[in-house]
Amino acid sequence: MATFYGIGIGPGDSELVTVKASRMLKQLDILYTPEAKKNDKSLALSIAEPYLSEHLQIKQRHFPMVRDRSLKEGQWQSIAEEIIADVQAGSNVGFITLGDPMVFSTYAYLLEIIGDRIETKTIPGITSYNSIASEVGVPLVMDEESFAVVPATAGLERLEAALSLHETVVIMKVANYLPTILPLLDKHGLLDTTILVSHASTDRQDVRRGVRDLSFDEKLSYFTTLIVKQP
Amino acid sequence: MATFYGIGIGPGDSELVTVKASRMLKQLDILYTPEAKKNDKSLALSIAEPYLSEHLQIKQRHFPMVRDRSLKEGQWQSIAEEIIADVQAGSNVGFITLGDPMVFSTYAYLLEIIGDRIETKTIPGITSYNSIASEVGVPLVMDEESFAVVPATAGLERLEAALSLHETVVIMKVANYLPTILPLLDKHGLLDTTILVSHASTDRQDVRRGVRDLSFDEKLSYFTTLIVKQP
Repeated sequence: MATFYGIGIGPGDSELVTVKASRMLKQLDILYTPEAKKNDKSLALSIAEPYLSEHLQIKQRHFPMVRDRSLKEGQWQSIAEEIIADVQAGSNVGFITLGDPMVFSTYAYLLEIIGDRIETKTIPGITSYNSIASEVGVPLVMDEESFAVVPATAGLERLEAALSLHETVVIMKVANYLPTILPLLDKHGLLDTTILVSHASTDRQDVRRGVRDLSFDEKLSYFTTLIVKQP
Repeated sequence: MATFYGIGIGPGDSELVTVKASRMLKQLDILYTPEAKKNDKSLALSIAEPYLSEHLQIKQRHFPMVRDRSLKEGQWQSIAEEIIADVQAGSNVGFITLGDPMVFSTYAYLLEIIGDRIETKTIPGITSYNSIASEVGVPLVMDEESFAVVPATAGLERLEAALSLHETVVIMKVANYLPTILPLLDKHGLLDTTILVSHASTDRQDVRRGVRDLSFDEKLSYFTTLIVKQP
């Protein structure tokens, strides 16, 4: 039965795709990918590439990355309708997302719009922070500890509350928020126990243990994550 | 170079192992697995089975699952020494963990003891809650939301604080804690938006949307997780 597959392709290394995702990718007739800006354009596609079949049709579509939800909804709606039409015409259609489809992904909006109008199946993926934790050998949680995943965009108050509550806090999308995050980490004595990672699991991976020397105006990739550990 | 591999094998479905983990598993000479109690005994091993080579030597070892850390440390120390000796003798040695090696896994203790005495490499895995979220089509986080992963053993106060702070809270290890967790969810009006999953991604998977009808003394598997969503 023709199905719409939402496929998590992990943090960057093509080998961090699951066996299931690799099998689903091979079976696709059509693949929708978000057309992002600048250098990030082909990251998702390059991760999936080893698993794509020769007859695959790729449809790059523009997903606006703006805060105003109403500006985005028209575009999502029209892509969702296109996907529904493709599946109803008998094609297996895929949508790939970096990391996991249920963690900060546009896919969740598509799924909401599509509902049960066609068969859908979602395949989980390795998140950037799980990959980073393994790479640097630092546990996210042990025993009775807890951890939180907070986007830098959630605001200072929530970040501070999370830092007070959990042994580990993963802060995502930090690129433009260093001027607010670094003083917060300093205030809580966390500058030396924070790990910064850009481009997890790829050739461009950049890992720093401790962020005391980081300057406020350092140019960081959008794919930069902090793992903040209580000392 | 002979290496010790910590390998996350995901929530239960052998296909939710990463391509990298499947390749590492094939290269192992010796595999250490935790010998758990009762029916759970062979779950980790059965997930990894399709990827194991014929010449593999399996060493089941007892990891005590008790709260008192000092009771466990002697045992970990002796297993770590055994692993170090095997790697120094030229074997590729593996240790498999359900879900991800950096999320509530005994592996983190082994890694701490082993330090840099031998070459180590950790391969991330799909966590149960990421798998569940994809299975039920419920995002863990979108946009500016945050989520937390809290074990039921962390205590009521922390659970309550996490429920107040985050849009989504994953509660793990809930099996024996229903008498304290259910009233807490009721108090916050969360009984109907909580999803319960046992044995994620396996043939025995049990998903319930809403836990209003759950009784305090229901027998739940150790592998039961709640995803609590703010309405």
